[in-house]
Amino acid sequence: MKVSSPVRELILARQPGYNLPAPFYTAAEIYDLDMDVIFGRHWIYVGVEPDIPEPGDYFTVKLGRASIVVVRDDDMNVRAFHNVCRHRGAQLCNEHKGSVGNIVCPYHQWTYDLSGKLIHNEHMGQDFDFSRHSLKSVHVGNLAGLIFVCLAEQPPADFEEMRAAMEPYIAPHGIADCKVVMQDDFVEAGNWKLTLENNRECYHCVSNHPELTSSIYEYGFGYQPSPANAEAVQGFQELIEREHARWEAAGLKSAEIEMLDGRVTGFRTQRLPLDKAGESQTMDARVACEKLLANFTDRKLGGLSFWTQPNSWHHFMSDHIVTFSVLPIDAENTLVRTKWLVHKDAVEGRDYDLARLTEVWKATNRQDGALVEMSQRGAASPAYEPGPYSPYTEALVEKFCNWYVERLRAALD
Amino acid sequence: MKVSSPVRELILARQPGYNLPAPFYTAAEIYDLDMDVIFGRHWIYVGVEPDIPEPGDYFTVKLGRASIVVVRDDDMNVRAFHNVCRHRGAQLCNEHKGSVGNIVCPYHQWTYDLSGKLIHNEHMGQDFDFSRHSLKSVHVGNLAGLIFVCLAEQPPADFEEMRAAMEPYIAPHGIADCKVVMQDDFVEAGNWKLTLENNRECYHCVSNHPELTSSIYEYGFGYQPSPANAEAVQGFQELIEREHARWEAAGLKSAEIEMLDGRVTGFRTQRLPLDKAGESQTMDARVACEKLLANFTDRKLGGLSFWTQPNSWHHFMSDHIVTFSVLPIDAENTLVRTKWLVHKDAVEGRDYDLARLTEVWKATNRQDGALVEMSQRGAASPAYEPGPYSPYTEALVEKFCNWYVERLRAALD
Amino acid sequence: MKVSSPVRELILARQPGYNLPAPFYTAAEIYDLDMDVIFGRHWIYVGVEPDIPEPGDYFTVKLGRASIVVVRDDDMNVRAFHNVCRHRGAQLCNEHKGSVGNIVCPYHQWTYDLSGKLIHNEHMGQDFDFSRHSLKSVHVGNLAGLIFVCLAEQPPADFEEMRAAMEPYIAPHGIADCKVVMQDDFVEAGNWKLTLENNRECYHCVSNHPELTSSIYEYGFGYQPSPANAEAVQGFQELIEREHARWEAAGLKSAEIEMLDGRVTGFRTQRLPLDKAGESQTMDARVACEKLLANFTDRKLGGLSFWTQPNSWHHFMSDHIVTFSVLPIDAENTLVRTKWLVHKDAVEGRDYDLARLTEVWKATNRQDGALVEMSQRGAASPAYEPGPYSPYTEALVEKFCNWYVERLRAALD
Repeated sequence: MKVSSPVRELILARQPGYNLPAPFYTAAEIYDLDMDVIFGRHWIYVGVEPDIPEPGDYFTVKLGRASIVVVRDDDMNVRAFHNVCRHRGAQLCNEHKGSVGNIVCPYHQWTYDLSGKLIHNEHMGQDFDFSRHSLKSVHVGNLAGLIFVCLAEQPPADFEEMRAAMEPYIAPHGIADCKVVMQDDFVEAGNWKLTLENNRECYHCVSNHPELTSSIYEYGFGYQPSPANAEAVQGFQELIEREHARWEAAGLKSAEIEMLDGRVTGFRTQRLPLDKAGESQTMDARVACEKLLANFTDRKLGGLSFWTQPNSWHHFMSDHIVTFSVLPIDAENTLVRTKWLVHKDAVEGRDYDLARLTEVWKATNRQDGALVEMSQRGAASPAYEPGPYSPYTEALVEKFCNWYVERLRAALD
Repeated sequence: MKVSSPVRELILARQPGYNLPAPFYTAAEIYDLDMDVIFGRHWIYVGVEPDIPEPGDYFTVKLGRASIVVVRDDDMNVRAFHNVCRHRGAQLCNEHKGSVGNIVCPYHQWTYDLSGKLIHNEHMGQDFDFSRHSLKSVHVGNLAGLIFVCLAEQPPADFEEMRAAMEPYIAPHGIADCKVVMQDDFVEAGNWKLTLENNRECYHCVSNHPELTSSIYEYGFGYQPSPANAEAVQGFQELIEREHARWEAAGLKSAEIEMLDGRVTGFRTQRLPLDKAGESQTMDARVACEKLLANFTDRKLGGLSFWTQPNSWHHFMSDHIVTFSVLPIDAENTLVRTKWLVHKDAVEGRDYDLARLTEVWKATNRQDGALVEMSQRGAASPAYEPGPYSPYTEALVEKFCNWYVERLRAALD
Repeated sequence: MKVSSPVRELILARQPGYNLPAPFYTAAEIYDLDMDVIFGRHWIYVGVEPDIPEPGDYFTVKLGRASIVVVRDDDMNVRAFHNVCRHRGAQLCNEHKGSVGNIVCPYHQWTYDLSGKLIHNEHMGQDFDFSRHSLKSVHVGNLAGLIFVCLAEQPPADFEEMRAAMEPYIAPHGIADCKVVMQDDFVEAGNWKLTLENNRECYHCVSNHPELTSSIYEYGFGYQPSPANAEAVQGFQELIEREHARWEAAGLKSAEIEMLDGRVTGFRTQRLPLDKAGESQTMDARVACEKLLANFTDRKLGGLSFWTQPNSWHHFMSDHIVTFSVLPIDAENTLVRTKWLVHKDAVEGRDYDLARLTEVWKATNRQDGALVEMSQRGAASPAYEPGPYSPYTEALVEKFCNWYVERLRAALD
């Protein structure tokens, strides 16, 4: 891999316990490196099975300069291809979502079936070899209905470990029996790592997220012990233990798994109790959808969170799922794509109200976007220098940065 | 000429029969090279004599970073100058079209006559030498009323061959007796070569251009022989022979001339019959202007097309002319400037309806713009690789690319 | 300082009496150099004391990639800091103007007092050293109420000479007793040096500034002697002598001071008579504000102008002050920030009409913006070459360029 000396030195000189140096947020060379090493060689979360319930349903997603089309084939498998015709190179699918019988290039009608095989064209002569002009495929990983893709020829094998560990947590929520009722595409004016770092701590929650902190306990992200908060923190720990025991007895795995650094496919999970009514991440902490997921009857299942590196997080409640993918646009702009899922048999107006379902995370995303933008502005200043992380509330930010720098280092040689 | 090694290798490694590699459509270095070698040293079509009918009439045109002012002088000659004051360097003419007595700089009123000579200024002192501060002139080539400019000190001499060959075709249509009744400036979100390649084939027409294929035969661009289309293709060939004989007898040259590669100033021409009523490129193939061009009385003169390298194409019918110049904006954006001409004595509302006159090519331009944008998006993907051209319908695309690569190679040494 | 060879040669090859070569207006490398050497190491004018009358009042200003917050502290001193939190680097103040008790980071509520000292945060542990996390301060220079900042560690010492020379001129106008009644932020589509060069001559005024030349004499910027204008120029000189004598007798210093090149902090001043009613830079040359500045009773105090290098000019009349700061955005865009001040006790609608107060310079700014844009377009052309300055009307443009090139040369070694 071609890396300039100053960037190589920055990667090797990373100081633990501190923010990353400014070029990691601003330099075009490091952005290109991120797109190559991080987004080009790791498992990237892009959507859910209910985005494409029927054969021929597809969605497109941009990973750096690559456009990928994710499609359900006639055998109900999820497949992914580079969204580029093998003739003159036109982009094949130019809408974000749609449904097709075959994939037909709008330019000269070269036609590919849903397995990516070129099956028809005209005027190419008797000797034209169809077999050499299939669509270029992209690896797909399916974790209980969460769809990941990997652009590398040899995708990281430890996806299977993540799947084995996580399926028992996620499968009970029944993603395949859900529908996506809202997608919110929001551009944050900052580097994608600022988006991730912001997601990995709740130090900022109490002052910035009035809607989110209606239902979640900020203690879940770590708090400095002090006489003032000792009782509340202790109470939260005891609550976790009680609820974990209850949920595990009901077959819902809840214990924390943290496999963040020291591996290729980093992830973490934990099911946490919710505040107040304790049912869901809504303004009053009650369910947003009367028709519960899967075969649930208990509304108080807390929030199962699942964080992946480099680009996603997800919250599974008894009544709905919220799922986030982070898609870099350039060094200083990042798309955050949020989807809300409810049971496919839930009826809008009767079982759920769309505004109520989405208000907490729509507000929270906007607030986080403003914080990311302030961080990007600061990183652009020549006066910026990496500051220290809180050992209590920012340990997971530190772990994200450790993983990130580890992955770059592994690619250096 | 300074060219990086990777770009030099790309130029030398061009594989015949296939699309150009992606950097030719996306790389800033190659765009700069195109502006220097192709647009800086070849004859570039920029407009028509009727754009500037009277002395002092001018229009400006941007060729890369250079702004050029094309003006009719007091002796009715067409002249062109760099649009930059010789004092503080301000741009002189800041409108696209206008009419002036002299060219006066808006900044400090330095005044140039229509031959580019500085004739007046103030406060410059007794010793100021006016003769050393004329406008910098640009070469002009006038082909029967089509205006070309060349930024090079020594413009390609084979413009004269093109003129000698083409004047007998074009002159009968009487450009000088026309008026420009519509100009449409449309930006395509793609590299200029994608615009040209798209123009050099009609493989895409049948599925993308319902308006255009109302009157033109797609067979004109080559078709793979097959039992299914054998009769139609054969019929078209016979039609051409019959109509050519009729037109040539009437003094209208019609035979194909193809002088595309192996030379500096590449061009091609052909007069082709039109479908249906056979009169003009309109929705019903009837004339759009009742007042015919020149001294024509026969409405059925087909369409005389003239294609030049690197940046133009033109269609001459019995009743109107449509003429296109392609002007790169940056590596990924291109201005397509379309002008419609009718006889200068034609009266709007009586002889022609502007909407009807322009509807076919306005629609076609938008459709082509969408195709060019899809091609640009595809070329931006790391998965793009050059695909094969149809030997039947894309031979002229191949010839355009051959010419282009030849011209870069000639500049390499 | 890292400078490429071509740029170094351009700096060393500067030809006196001529415009700067095009890369000084267009090249990203030279823009970066300007931001480092000129805007990073000189005194930059950013605002006036009345922008922040009370403790806790602040404004922010962007100097290249650095955002600076200028604040009045509890002891009424003006202080400036880099607008970047020492924790995660978020931008602290995200509005252009405001008022605060302490400076609190919106991200995690790290709290700094108005002297920049970190006084509070949470969750950082027992060993956290507050004293090492103060805001980074920026030097402030206060010239009779005009606020300058300098980003360098060692700011140029000759600011004190400028202050000593200029305070007697400016102090009588009583800036501290004024209020800012209008701020106009206007982006000119040109390099910042074109904005400055345009400001340093009035050769362009007669044809471009009908509003401004209602009250100012263009002769003030130099005129080629000629039989046609001899009488007018002579009359203007005599007028200056008479008025200077009158103003100096009243305690208002008026004589020209020119300390432009050969020094680090270049400046020039002069009090000039105004035309017609002679009172103020308004359309009828009468005062725009009936409540005069300071303790003035004489309306006819002409216009005291003060020009600084690299980025400001100011006009002080008997009734109001207009003050301009030039803030580069990128190589081809520049913010011109104009503020109008009147006595703080003046009442809108009674003493002044805001539209009348601001109309001359709002119009003049727009006209200058158009000229700067034309100049930028010309400089972008490959045909641009430096032209000669008028020895009569452009001597101060030449001196600005001399100073600029001197400062770059001084930084080269």
